[in-house]
Amino acid sequence: MSLTVSTPEAAAKAASYSAQSLATLPSEDRNEALTAIHDALSESRDTVLAANAKDMESALRASKDGQMRSSLVKRLDLSRPGKYNDMLQGILDVRMLEDPIGKIDLRTLLDQNLELTRVSCPIGVLLIIFEARPEVIANIAALAIKSGNAAILKGGKESTESFRAISMVISKTLESTQVPNAAIQLVQTRDVIDQLLALDRYIDLVIPRGGNDLVTYVKSHTKIPVLGHADGLCTIYINSDANEDMAVKLVLESKCDYPAGCNAVETLLVHQDVLSTILPAVAEALLANGVSLRCDPQSKAALEDKLPASSAILIQDATEEDYNTEYTDLILAIKTIPSYPTNGTITHPPPSDPSLTHAITHINTHSSHHTDCIITSSPAAAETFMSAVDSAGVYWNASTRFADGMRYGFGTEVGISTNKIHARGPVGLEGLTIYKYKLRGWGQGIGDYKEGGRRYLHRRLPVDGEER
Amino acid sequence: MSLTVSTPEAAAKAASYSAQSLATLPSEDRNEALTAIHDALSESRDTVLAANAKDMESALRASKDGQMRSSLVKRLDLSRPGKYNDMLQGILDVRMLEDPIGKIDLRTLLDQNLELTRVSCPIGVLLIIFEARPEVIANIAALAIKSGNAAILKGGKESTESFRAISMVISKTLESTQVPNAAIQLVQTRDVIDQLLALDRYIDLVIPRGGNDLVTYVKSHTKIPVLGHADGLCTIYINSDANEDMAVKLVLESKCDYPAGCNAVETLLVHQDVLSTILPAVAEALLANGVSLRCDPQSKAALEDKLPASSAILIQDATEEDYNTEYTDLILAIKTIPSYPTNGTITHPPPSDPSLTHAITHINTHSSHHTDCIITSSPAAAETFMSAVDSAGVYWNASTRFADGMRYGFGTEVGISTNKIHARGPVGLEGLTIYKYKLRGWGQGIGDYKEGGRRYLHRRLPVDGEER
Repeated sequence: MSLTVSTPEAAAKAASYSAQSLATLPSEDRNEALTAIHDALSESRDTVLAANAKDMESALRASKDGQMRSSLVKRLDLSRPGKYNDMLQGILDVRMLEDPIGKIDLRTLLDQNLELTRVSCPIGVLLIIFEARPEVIANIAALAIKSGNAAILKGGKESTESFRAISMVISKTLESTQVPNAAIQLVQTRDVIDQLLALDRYIDLVIPRGGNDLVTYVKSHTKIPVLGHADGLCTIYINSDANEDMAVKLVLESKCDYPAGCNAVETLLVHQDVLSTILPAVAEALLANGVSLRCDPQSKAALEDKLPASSAILIQDATEEDYNTEYTDLILAIKTIPSYPTNGTITHPPPSDPSLTHAITHINTHSSHHTDCIITSSPAAAETFMSAVDSAGVYWNASTRFADGMRYGFGTEVGISTNKIHARGPVGLEGLTIYKYKLRGWGQGIGDYKEGGRRYLHRRLPVDGEER
Repeated sequence: MSLTVSTPEAAAKAASYSAQSLATLPSEDRNEALTAIHDALSESRDTVLAANAKDMESALRASKDGQMRSSLVKRLDLSRPGKYNDMLQGILDVRMLEDPIGKIDLRTLLDQNLELTRVSCPIGVLLIIFEARPEVIANIAALAIKSGNAAILKGGKESTESFRAISMVISKTLESTQVPNAAIQLVQTRDVIDQLLALDRYIDLVIPRGGNDLVTYVKSHTKIPVLGHADGLCTIYINSDANEDMAVKLVLESKCDYPAGCNAVETLLVHQDVLSTILPAVAEALLANGVSLRCDPQSKAALEDKLPASSAILIQDATEEDYNTEYTDLILAIKTIPSYPTNGTITHPPPSDPSLTHAITHINTHSSHHTDCIITSSPAAAETFMSAVDSAGVYWNASTRFADGMRYGFGTEVGISTNKIHARGPVGLEGLTIYKYKLRGWGQGIGDYKEGGRRYLHRRLPVDGEER
């Protein structure tokens, strides 16, 4: 890992060059580099924590002056119990994951002695822009090396000293491994983000890890593909046949477990038929946990009718804007989904459920296509919902907080994507790979297969092998 | 299919809305729409050909005035023998393909009654910008409908009448199918490309089907992901141990079969040891087919030495620019890869082949990462080449012209991509899909799995099923 190369362009060019040799390294070499980094960071604990203490000092000063939120200061602190060990363990966890490179997912015998193979390979050069938490740098370096990608890292200025200390350890360590030194580079010079975002010639993918502002900025300032999500406006729809206990439990956790999380619920849709039955129980639990409710007139009336007057202070009128807002706070927008009258006639095929359609349309229009959930006892309603809602995660009777790479069993998480191409939802290591087609022939040309010539076999072969 | 909606934004919004219902249509409904379109276009042959005749008239006039190349005029002509039938058959071919939607590629039991499934689904709204050939509109409409995507089509002005006639037939036909009318829209108003490219709110993927100029323009004028390739600078490297007949055959076809193709070879790298043996035979065959050669001094000297003086007129000096040029013409750049002296000592591990490394570095620096080939008798050299060359297609002893979706056995081709994410190389229908995660629970929250609680099973389940 190099520290602060002269210019962003030089850094990107060097990364691009070293990506080529990193891409050909066998799994063992990449894993050995991870072991070496782990061991070196373990030995350098005191040095790194001393550097981190300097960052903490500056942060505490900034916090006192009101220039930094205290929650941010806490996230900087590497000396919190378990924090440093977690960082070290994270490197070993990534090392233990299955190698995402060299996996064959398609093999076709085009003809005798003409075999086409599709093999996973690294994307190339990643640009990873992240904010305060200093341990992220070790995690990111591990993910990049494991997946055979070069990476340019740009960290937030709050962790300057910690980043420098960690990257010096990594840099020194890489010198004794097969991973090229320039494959992982930390850029610390200020105000270089725009320059880096312009280097689409060398950089293949940008991964902004931070708040909405960062992601939105990155997305609108680069031609390089961006993996991530700017917004996490998740919705829960309580259908007329929902189980009340389930509704209370799932809405409460989805809102209150970690309100700043991108997978926290922000809008609650409630079927009109359960406004006076299930909604008050849900609201009571939310209010008891300090959640403010922004209600449409119908749901507000129902709550005012059922809840004690003392609750009123936390129940406000919703505006249209509330249904487009990611609060990342203890606030929840509530909207009623109308119950539609049936005229009693039986039709074939049966009419679709207009309330469900209404809820789906609301979600497809207002949600950020991150994670949306239906609470219902009807498998048919659930399947319709999951088929029609256009989001990375579509849930039936489960907390939106499950949207996470670790919980999905991916072992690690590169990020959560709301892109419509490449990778969607929680992204594991495979999101850092693409593939190439290898064609092994024996002198064949396409002319051999023109009219009257040989015919393509196009025979699918088993793909259970690995390339190396 | 609607013709010319009022504004590009209205078209995109309508497409986005109808994409939501198109995404939920079962395979049969999408296939029935394709059958209906096929039958209607078959019945309307006379009307469509009459419209095409008008386009041809204008084109011939433009050609006479020198405003249009005659090769372009020919591509407009739907009345050429077999052309209309090919268009019709293409729709049936797409219909016969396996449904790319609803395929499960991951199933994990997170816990009892908590199952995670990853299911393929349409991307959403495609913007497809294409040039002259009028039959492309039927092909594209078929691909979009088959994959459950809405599409906005913007065709070149040369085929205005043909597009209008074909789209009116499709439009009328869709009204009697389950596919929403606005799912396929033709935009014919002029100068709307920039407006369309700005609609990243509604459009999920742009597919420019046309020449380099079009693709380059699109890539640099939109934030929407673009699927395609601007350049096709393919390379063949003749290693010192190449088979001469194979080299002659493969280079000749890769250059001459269709010089305008993106998978035609543009640069030939030749190992120094075979400059006087294999290269003259290759050059002789090329020269006999009218190919001009742009040579570095070493290869030029070798050819002048071996070939008759009469060949000299087609053998010129290469400049550095030649190795960055996609000629799409009967021109080939030739460069010598030096032979490195060995000092006779045996080392462990054996030293890598510096000539091969030289060739790989040249390709990774100069090629457009489309398709590159090595001709060699050494499996080890071939595997090193295919592992280290960072291109969508890496070939061993096979014509670069194989880079094509039909030849790969995909049944159809959406395009060839040199992107580093999502889809690379020849793209079949699966390139028009993404996935969503469905989580089916029974009221679980992540709190149930916190310390001291239940443990995740993360048990992989077989994925042989289809979602519907």
